[in-house]
Amino acid sequence: MKQKFGVKIMPREVILDTQGRAVEQTLRLNKLAAESVRVGRFVELEVAGTEAEARKKAEEIAKFVLHNPLIETFEIQKL
Amino acid sequence: MKQKFGVKIMPREVILDTQGRAVEQTLRLNKLAAESVRVGRFVELEVAGTEAEARKKAEEIAKFVLHNPLIETFEIQKL
Repeated sequence: MKQKFGVKIMPREVILDTQGRAVEQTLRLNKLAAESVRVGRFVELEVAGTEAEARKKAEEIAKFVLHNPLIETFEIQKL
Repeated sequence: MKQKFGVKIMPREVILDTQGRAVEQTLRLNKLAAESVRVGRFVELEVAGTEAEARKKAEEIAKFVLHNPLIETFEIQKL
């Protein structure tokens, strides 16, 4: 049985998010106001096993492969 | 009043997701199996207004600035 998970990876609050700043500026130039824009990644993956097993594996994958702990935090969602 | 939204932007199913393929291969080499890996983006932003107004603005922003309709689909979440 396969379980589908989403891993949301965002830059840490203390990190200057240059992509987010660029988006904010572009929006301002287009008269679309938004604040505190932060750009991260979203990874969808399917893992085999029961829900608990699969979640453990997905967490391992997110922790060791997908995110850089120095500058990013991640969050797992069941999809 | 400010409302916080998340915009999840994923490559369309029919599009070959090279980033996702690369992640899958890396996981395989590290004996961590996952399938159907797809890599997208997640943008968090704050928009002023009531919830309905802000959601409309966030949708406009996602539609016209954040996603490329040829290769991506987006989904808005209230955070």
